[in-house]
Amino acid sequence: MKLISFVTDGVSSYGVLEGTTVKDLGAVLRGRFPTLKALLGEDFLSIAQETEAPRLARSAVQLLPPVPDPAKILCIGKNYEEHRVETGGEKLAYPTIFTRFADTLVADGQDAWAPGVSSEIDFEGELAVVIGRAGRHIALEDALSHVAGYACFNDISIRDWQRHTTQFTPGKNFPRTGGFGPWIVTADEIADPQALDLTTWLNGDEVQKANTAEMIFNIRALIHYCSSFTQLSPGDVIATGTPGGVGAKRKPQLFMKVGDVVEIEIASVGTLRNSIGEGKA
Amino acid sequence: MKLISFVTDGVSSYGVLEGTTVKDLGAVLRGRFPTLKALLGEDFLSIAQETEAPRLARSAVQLLPPVPDPAKILCIGKNYEEHRVETGGEKLAYPTIFTRFADTLVADGQDAWAPGVSSEIDFEGELAVVIGRAGRHIALEDALSHVAGYACFNDISIRDWQRHTTQFTPGKNFPRTGGFGPWIVTADEIADPQALDLTTWLNGDEVQKANTAEMIFNIRALIHYCSSFTQLSPGDVIATGTPGGVGAKRKPQLFMKVGDVVEIEIASVGTLRNSIGEGKA
Repeated sequence: MKLISFVTDGVSSYGVLEGTTVKDLGAVLRGRFPTLKALLGEDFLSIAQETEAPRLARSAVQLLPPVPDPAKILCIGKNYEEHRVETGGEKLAYPTIFTRFADTLVADGQDAWAPGVSSEIDFEGELAVVIGRAGRHIALEDALSHVAGYACFNDISIRDWQRHTTQFTPGKNFPRTGGFGPWIVTADEIADPQALDLTTWLNGDEVQKANTAEMIFNIRALIHYCSSFTQLSPGDVIATGTPGGVGAKRKPQLFMKVGDVVEIEIASVGTLRNSIGEGKA
Repeated sequence: MKLISFVTDGVSSYGVLEGTTVKDLGAVLRGRFPTLKALLGEDFLSIAQETEAPRLARSAVQLLPPVPDPAKILCIGKNYEEHRVETGGEKLAYPTIFTRFADTLVADGQDAWAPGVSSEIDFEGELAVVIGRAGRHIALEDALSHVAGYACFNDISIRDWQRHTTQFTPGKNFPRTGGFGPWIVTADEIADPQALDLTTWLNGDEVQKANTAEMIFNIRALIHYCSSFTQLSPGDVIATGTPGGVGAKRKPQLFMKVGDVVEIEIASVGTLRNSIGEGKA
């Protein structure tokens, strides 16, 4: 099942994408579950299947990030060996964790924003894990049962601002720099999330290619570690890190500029497509 | 004016602390402003003064963090020279920024939580700036006009988890490790926020002493820089960094343990007091 959040006729809603139609769950469930993240904490598969809801044409909706309002976005750095080596990081016993604010998210099909203050705008294709069942101190063997589903993520990084100090926060938190979508593929449809080909395309050229099997800390380990210091709640996002090939470490460097088109394709999940536009805020 | 958020009779509210009574603004304004942060975006001084509202005995309310639900908590590292030197950081051209989630906050008078996984629980007394007027790309000379007021902050740090990798996130995001309060002193009552004595007391012993004049990046500079990459909104918090004297850098080291009492006293603002309790989540 592909879960989406969207705007139709100026109203925010959510539902299920079924080919060229959208089942508008929000139209009937909004009172119980104001946004998709509230639904994700429940038995969302059954509820989505059993709820009678109006159908919209896909062309009548504008996608939002699949969870527009996550309480926590935890991003993982240096989680593929090739990227760890290209960025010169040591081998570590723990995942590297930084955060994004929700206003950094940008939906599929929308412009990601190039801030005017930098020319070092870099792509980072990633698999995003969306939490369903809440948890804290989640055991490795239970971790995947807390996953609602998976999406594509583009952890667009403003490299010079990321390196202003030791902490990455500024370079990862410009508005509309976190591509997320197009949808959440529910976890029941992904037989093995650690066996997915991931490709990043810039203007049609392949710039990153890896398989999620190559993660240093796998999804179970990331959920276990994150939940060891913070509560995970429905709709929270873990962006699981990017493979090698980022623009900053290429020779010559390859940064994105206004007018470029960047796509993150993950097998069995989908393709997230954003053009690069001028930052308007 | 001292603004507080609180619970009374099981209901969350907010208002003005006036000696031994509380003017319960939430009781009459909740429809327009569900929580204090919504009010902070308006002309809150006039509204608070002019609104007729019931009075409660101070003993009838239990304090919450003055803003219980900030959208963004931006924390500044290494922002006093003595602390920069004790932690071995280089002189930098930009402030060091990390973030906290809102569920790390703990109110005055409540137990801060010692997570069971660490014995390196350290105090960090700080001045917190609470944003009133929203802004982005805020000029240095306008920065203080975006401040609603000031509070005490204890940026309690789980040192070993802070050093798991280069990024501080885990060590700064255990639940109930961010002491915040007791109240917001509105900015009109602070003639110069860069001339405030700040003292941290552990079990009655002075462990940090400085003046906010000693910040490396002053409040104007912090607001200017933060707003250069992210929107600042009413209720957002900037914890402006801690002076020298933290427990991890003492010889011998001085960490906090269950049963300890830690107080952050800031002249003209107030004293934030937390005991250390066992983490319950």
